[in-house]
Amino acid sequence: MADIRAVEWTGDGLRLIDQTALPGRVVPLDVRDVDGLVDAIVRLAVRGAPALGVAGAFGVAVAMRQAAAEGWDDATLEAAITRVREARPTAVNLAAGVDRVRPLVAEGLDAVVAEARALLEEDVRGNRAIGAHGADWLLDRVGDRPLRVLTHCNTGALATAGWGTALGIVRELHARDRLEVVYADETRPLLQGSRLTAWELEQAGIPYLVQADGAAAGTVLRGLVDVAVIGADRVAANGDTANKVGSVGVALACAAAGIPFVVAAPWSTVDLATPDGAAIPIEERAADEVLAWGGAPVAPPGARAFNPAFDVTPARLVTALVTETGVLEVSAGTTPDRPAP
Amino acid sequence: MADIRAVEWTGDGLRLIDQTALPGRVVPLDVRDVDGLVDAIVRLAVRGAPALGVAGAFGVAVAMRQAAAEGWDDATLEAAITRVREARPTAVNLAAGVDRVRPLVAEGLDAVVAEARALLEEDVRGNRAIGAHGADWLLDRVGDRPLRVLTHCNTGALATAGWGTALGIVRELHARDRLEVVYADETRPLLQGSRLTAWELEQAGIPYLVQADGAAAGTVLRGLVDVAVIGADRVAANGDTANKVGSVGVALACAAAGIPFVVAAPWSTVDLATPDGAAIPIEERAADEVLAWGGAPVAPPGARAFNPAFDVTPARLVTALVTETGVLEVSAGTTPDRPAP
Repeated sequence: MADIRAVEWTGDGLRLIDQTALPGRVVPLDVRDVDGLVDAIVRLAVRGAPALGVAGAFGVAVAMRQAAAEGWDDATLEAAITRVREARPTAVNLAAGVDRVRPLVAEGLDAVVAEARALLEEDVRGNRAIGAHGADWLLDRVGDRPLRVLTHCNTGALATAGWGTALGIVRELHARDRLEVVYADETRPLLQGSRLTAWELEQAGIPYLVQADGAAAGTVLRGLVDVAVIGADRVAANGDTANKVGSVGVALACAAAGIPFVVAAPWSTVDLATPDGAAIPIEERAADEVLAWGGAPVAPPGARAFNPAFDVTPARLVTALVTETGVLEVSAGTTPDRPAP
Repeated sequence: MADIRAVEWTGDGLRLIDQTALPGRVVPLDVRDVDGLVDAIVRLAVRGAPALGVAGAFGVAVAMRQAAAEGWDDATLEAAITRVREARPTAVNLAAGVDRVRPLVAEGLDAVVAEARALLEEDVRGNRAIGAHGADWLLDRVGDRPLRVLTHCNTGALATAGWGTALGIVRELHARDRLEVVYADETRPLLQGSRLTAWELEQAGIPYLVQADGAAAGTVLRGLVDVAVIGADRVAANGDTANKVGSVGVALACAAAGIPFVVAAPWSTVDLATPDGAAIPIEERAADEVLAWGGAPVAPPGARAFNPAFDVTPARLVTALVTETGVLEVSAGTTPDRPAP
């Protein structure tokens, strides 16, 4: 199939794939204004830390076009840009994408769009590099043979500007004929695994099995998996990693089984200003994501839910952090703020 | 509300609550023949290891009534009883419940029903004892204060003949004013946590929060939980414990956080003939449980799933096994086949 483009600039606006409609339908979503973009971000029509970064950068352009059309003053535009920047709190990339292009607002729309495009192209190149570094490291450390890979949430083309981070490593292993099967955690409550990762793997012809999140630890402990590879929404300076809720459980299982737990993310996901995981804000989302399914309740009337969107995996459980610049062996002591000696 | 009775004998047949209809509706299910019983067991209209034991015992009576009505010979009756016994493989209680009454078949229906009733009454008494032993142990070891308890799947009145095992401990803590909140894992794929446990807790007026299974490890590691208490489908002689898929991930998190992981089960769940967890058969269920919801697909066409219904928690991660006879501190070396010195 054609390349999956979760975020693109059409020339006069931002076009997303509405990921809430997948896997049933591929619905393009043209974002016309800041309200529409914030809504798309909040309801996860666009999600995934790198994709949010690119959407944030183009979001500044969306705000500028709306400002021009509606005659906003500078303060209104700035407030609108800040709304985009803060639409979700955990992934550092969204704010970073906005911040990257914001200094160019004074130079005009074309400058902002050009910088956002540059970010998009860097992300795709970075993902390719992540895939290559990760595959090299895995085939060297785990074995030069078809690997059984567990992943959580979606870190593919839909979560990025294209190709993918953790799923980029999977794609690269597959391209090298070194991918036996992917265990894709379904990733409750919003099923990014069964809806999005499975859809991407199906498109790519990569063998996979969807499993309930609760099955992941047992699958690892039973020896059915060679490595777990996941993405990140924010990596702290000490290597603590926030990622989709359920990730730290996979990490604990990998540690118990003695297999690598690998985090794949662009360097822009590393936030050296965040010293450790305790300083990462964890978004809590609406109870209905857990308590209802397609609008129908799955819990009794009166039920409440605890619905954190992310969890934090401590650095000691992160075997390797793969970025476009190379591999940090975190649990061995190489962290973003403390390179290998 | 009136006591919840998941399994009862009406005098002329077996009445279940159809647990697939909860929490929306409380639908009684009158089992009229062996096909109906096997179907109810397979589709989890009745589930939970102790409840399956009682259903298996009364199931022999169901088979005897059908044999009388349809003029079966002894071999046909024996085959039908074996079908009930083997309807699901992991919980030892189902087979044990059948085996307990089977020797009485020659004595007639009344003898079988009386013995099944005795099993039911023993189960309720046993659950009350489990609740008391578990609450005593927790308040002694964790602290004599309101506790925050995480649980997985459903181990309440619906999973037993009444009251509950792990949820029996929760009920007992609540009765003693020592229960702050229950974190109820939703328990995918069939949502026994959000559908059944939440329903029971709501009925009992016990505070609770439903969470996605993937959230459990993070909730534990963030210090939001004092203890996890779960049930068991089979406990091996060495203390390895099979329970609903997702349990071992909770156990790993508890070990990492240094909080107790407590298994509550009647002694009949202990299978001394099974030396360790590797010898416990793990049921794999239909892919559709993971890949579809209410008949609507949540994964792309062509998707396959890995759907083990259980996982095995190694004995070293089981802090305590609470049965009606007392508490074995398993990770400290006291196992079913090796009592404390």
